Amino acid sequence: MKEHTAHEPNPKLDLVLERKIDVPASLVWRAWTEPELLMQWFCPLPWRTTACEIDLRPGGVFSSVMEGPEGERHDSEGCFLDVIPNEKLVWTSCMLRGYRPNLAPSGAECNEIHFTAIVTMEQVEDETRYRVIAVHGDESSKNRHAEMGFDQGWGAAYDQMASMLRDMKS
Amino acid sequence: MKEHTAHEPNPKLDLVLERKIDVPASLVWRAWTEPELLMQWFCPLPWRTTACEIDLRPGGVFSSVMEGPEGERHDSEGCFLDVIPNEKLVWTSCMLRGYRPNLAPSGAECNEIHFTAIVTMEQVEDETRYRVIAVHGDESSKNRHAEMGFDQGWGAAYDQMASMLRDMKS
Repeated sequence: MKEHTAHEPNPKLDLVLERKIDVPASLVWRAWTEPELLMQWFCPLPWRTTACEIDLRPGGVFSSVMEGPEGERHDSEGCFLDVIPNEKLVWTSCMLRGYRPNLAPSGAECNEIHFTAIVTMEQVEDETRYRVIAVHGDESSKNRHAEMGFDQGWGAAYDQMASMLRDMKS
Repeated sequence: MKEHTAHEPNPKLDLVLERKIDVPASLVWRAWTEPELLMQWFCPLPWRTTACEIDLRPGGVFSSVMEGPEGERHDSEGCFLDVIPNEKLVWTSCMLRGYRPNLAPSGAECNEIHFTAIVTMEQVEDETRYRVIAVHGDESSKNRHAEMGFDQGWGAAYDQMASMLRDMKS
């Protein structure tokens, strides 16, 4: 079998968050794959991730419940696609557990956007190059995701993750 | 990492084709993964598969062109999800190459159905237990796939594959 696919973002269709963090890649991996850790950072405050299921294998479920300060609730279920410990984690909103197609509507009218998240962590000496690529099906999805605050939202979540991991490291 | 997901079909949502064939699993694997072989059997006659791209790795493309006797043409692109040589091949119509969401409409009005195909081959002595599970997002998709002739279509394609593989073996 050939090596796993390399992912070069397409600027027309994809959004990218890139950071360097001063903790080992193995800690970033844990932040993404242990529910009790993920729940601490995954959702920018004042929203909170109040439940999370992680079945860490290709075809396994990745689901979460997010709750807002006014009692709002947002449930989502996705599916892991690629799981390479301490290196790469890929999941998508296009499928549910067991690779089942997710037919929930996506589009401007329902404020939902289907995307695949490609999360990579590459350790260089004491630092880790962390990257999230959000892969969309068309420009409209990408633009709506940007307008909904991809940079700010994923950036704030990253800050929460980095703060948690630095505390764990020290 | 845990082992790969086992796939138990859900009778309400999934369709299954199951056969026993008197060739080794490695030959069935080749029939599915070598374009020049796949093109010989993948589409029931009098339609033919006239082009095929196989990038055999998770996230790699699986595309084909089918042409009918009256000059009809049907292009499709999907994405490989799980690739375990001589054992399991999973691909989906829900995503394009590189795990990109496929936003092409699916539904009764356009005669397209999104599904994930889980193809397994299990060798038992000289025979191979061959199974295809078509995993759908809802009962309506499953029922339409059945009405479009899943059993006959995949059955006829299987017969063509089996005939080709027996010739290769002898």
